[in-house]
Amino acid sequence: MAKQTPRTLSGFMELLPAPQQQMERIMETLRKTYALYGFTPLDTPIIESSEVLLAKGGGETEKQIYRFQKGDADLSLRFDLTVPLAKYVALHYNDLTFPFRRYQIGKVYRGERAQRGRFREFYQADIDVIGDGKLSILNEAEIPAIIYKTFSALGLKRFRIRVNNRKILNGFYAALGLTEKAGDIMRTVDKLEKIGAGKVQEILTGDLAVPPEDAKEIIEFISITGDTQAILTALETRRGRNETFDEGLEELNTVVQYLGDFGVPAENFAVDLTIARGLDYYTGTVYETVLLDHPEIGSVCSGGRYDNLAEYYAEKQLPGVGISIGLTRLFYVLGEQGMLNPELPTAPADVLILPMTEDLSAAIALATELRENGIRVQLHCEEKKFKQKIGYADKWKIPYVIFLGEDEIQAGVVACKDMQTGEQTKLDPKATIYRIKAGLDSQNKGFVIKE
Amino acid sequence: MAKQTPRTLSGFMELLPAPQQQMERIMETLRKTYALYGFTPLDTPIIESSEVLLAKGGGETEKQIYRFQKGDADLSLRFDLTVPLAKYVALHYNDLTFPFRRYQIGKVYRGERAQRGRFREFYQADIDVIGDGKLSILNEAEIPAIIYKTFSALGLKRFRIRVNNRKILNGFYAALGLTEKAGDIMRTVDKLEKIGAGKVQEILTGDLAVPPEDAKEIIEFISITGDTQAILTALETRRGRNETFDEGLEELNTVVQYLGDFGVPAENFAVDLTIARGLDYYTGTVYETVLLDHPEIGSVCSGGRYDNLAEYYAEKQLPGVGISIGLTRLFYVLGEQGMLNPELPTAPADVLILPMTEDLSAAIALATELRENGIRVQLHCEEKKFKQKIGYADKWKIPYVIFLGEDEIQAGVVACKDMQTGEQTKLDPKATIYRIKAGLDSQNKGFVIKE
Repeated sequence: MAKQTPRTLSGFMELLPAPQQQMERIMETLRKTYALYGFTPLDTPIIESSEVLLAKGGGETEKQIYRFQKGDADLSLRFDLTVPLAKYVALHYNDLTFPFRRYQIGKVYRGERAQRGRFREFYQADIDVIGDGKLSILNEAEIPAIIYKTFSALGLKRFRIRVNNRKILNGFYAALGLTEKAGDIMRTVDKLEKIGAGKVQEILTGDLAVPPEDAKEIIEFISITGDTQAILTALETRRGRNETFDEGLEELNTVVQYLGDFGVPAENFAVDLTIARGLDYYTGTVYETVLLDHPEIGSVCSGGRYDNLAEYYAEKQLPGVGISIGLTRLFYVLGEQGMLNPELPTAPADVLILPMTEDLSAAIALATELRENGIRVQLHCEEKKFKQKIGYADKWKIPYVIFLGEDEIQAGVVACKDMQTGEQTKLDPKATIYRIKAGLDSQNKGFVIKE
Repeated sequence: MAKQTPRTLSGFMELLPAPQQQMERIMETLRKTYALYGFTPLDTPIIESSEVLLAKGGGETEKQIYRFQKGDADLSLRFDLTVPLAKYVALHYNDLTFPFRRYQIGKVYRGERAQRGRFREFYQADIDVIGDGKLSILNEAEIPAIIYKTFSALGLKRFRIRVNNRKILNGFYAALGLTEKAGDIMRTVDKLEKIGAGKVQEILTGDLAVPPEDAKEIIEFISITGDTQAILTALETRRGRNETFDEGLEELNTVVQYLGDFGVPAENFAVDLTIARGLDYYTGTVYETVLLDHPEIGSVCSGGRYDNLAEYYAEKQLPGVGISIGLTRLFYVLGEQGMLNPELPTAPADVLILPMTEDLSAAIALATELRENGIRVQLHCEEKKFKQKIGYADKWKIPYVIFLGEDEIQAGVVACKDMQTGEQTKLDPKATIYRIKAGLDSQNKGFVIKE
């Protein structure tokens, strides 16, 4: 029979078992951390009606969408988790109670140009808090605490959560009479790190025709750096010129004040007046998170406060605040950087049992006993040479191998080899279980990411 | 602005938060149980190249497939997890070591006729063991043990795993010289429970032109019932007429023998000579699982032994054995039958903290302390009346509410209300945490399914 060459589409991540185990560990960590902050898990369809999914219309994303007909239906694959959330909240509004806090970890689809490290199918891990009409600033202060906790739980230390407030930016540009140009200016200012202050000023006064004295003030403003307190102090000197600015400064002060109470260390947090995020969406605090030793990656967790989640579906005003981790890309980068802790177990089983007798009853009973004690067991009963079976444990990095022969069965003991140390014991099943569990506990210590 | 009516496509399950929590619990139970048996988690793309996915071609499924163009690419959404597994094993053959044991819980897509309880997007939860060339019969005996453990872990008791062996069927029909008609006969016999023995005999001798004496023998054969031992004894009397039959009987004997060692109780297991499953795929032991009080649902976990997983992709002979749970449908049916345990917590948080002071620092510090102790906490700082905030905890069924006013902060205590009993305590944070954890432990006892 002619065979079809098996292949996986370019831009679609498909992991081997060991890295998949690391990915599972990361997802489990995210689920647990998000749950600690009172977020409930959601799962929405990957396919939506195109008219619903694209209600907002236009935008860069639309070209990338996987859209197709099935019968009479015009369908699209979701390209993020925010639009499905907006639909969900509008659709189930009467069944929900607000504030509504949900997390969702799911695959999204964007037909991007195929490129190394770019994915067309990728996981996003999102949290959002949605209010009904109003939403306390406390939620905006809590988000960096969640980012901090999440990244810490994954094992990262050298990261920084950068925070800004859109009201400060909008107010600042309004005070200069530059509201109409604010979008273009912010897009330019966003490139500060890449192109430098001189070039930014050039574009401002040239392409954007900003008066030189305003450009100077803009450069001064975005050059406000230093520790959080220094930046807040510098902002204070600008108070009183614009109401929105003052409001944003109040909010930023509140966010900073509560961060200490939330236990976020000063070194993991910075106010950064250059970040703006999605220009027509965010309206208050905005977030980016960078790995200090890998700034080239860009932000690995971003988001912010928005005023109207479901404006395309409902009359209700539903403000919210949320963040998103591009999990597939983050995982890819961590792998490339060698930051996935190789010491954590990735084996499919904790113990491989090699029965040395014709009758497998004793081996099966032992496997059952171990499993009842929470130990992951595989019975290896294939017709293979002893050496091949040991090789099997080696290749899968199964940490313990148990040999069960007639002698052991008679004596009521179990021969168990620690594959890392080579140490072999002959103990009764209970003592063997105790030893294995202690060993597994020590192997499972440590974080999934290693800096 | 004109609003787009939000809707979710028909045939796509989208759960409210409380049932979603139950679904998550079920998935978590499956992941844990499968892992105990040494299966490694896999995650493959939802989109595959159509030529790869449909290499087998034809079949009833093809009409239902979500297939579309994106640029030059002819793409399809996966309709099961078996074909992607075949592709995965063929593609990554050199990176894998066999037997390869994987589980996968993922969404699959079939454009079925929209109908109550039928889904177009649904989760399958699969396990498979793949051998390279050969695969021990032990694996076929282990599968019912895994089904038993899985359903028990979910809380089911009144279920039965029905087992048959295709070699017994094939050998039996070969001995009668009916190999060519075997497929049609088995399809007819499969309806025995529905239409009765008389009608089956009628179709056999009529439509299928089976000689009357053979039809009689077929009816006799499929009427072999009773306990496992009785059926095995009846089969023994037919030994020696056909080699394949004898081989199948050996295998069935072995499977039955080991089931006891695996700890599967007799009442959860039955040999059933009428089941055949996929006619052109399975070659050895086959499985079905029925809920005894809901036979109308049909099998909730099915599978079997096959000889060649990746025949469309690779020259290698890769025999395997696996089972699949149609999770979305099962969840739907359990809900319809009122079998989802309402006593297990479904709240997004364990504790709702209501700060009663202007400054939130103390409340935030308390929330942080609780979370560090693994307690899921939500801070409620919205501008709402006290009664509304209590109502919020009620609606989300959050089990504990903490009030933190100036008095409590001064006294170093926490006022904590158990929302179920109404009991309120004023204890220091440590004692409060202890009380909450004990309460949560007792609430989290019990299984997700209640019979």
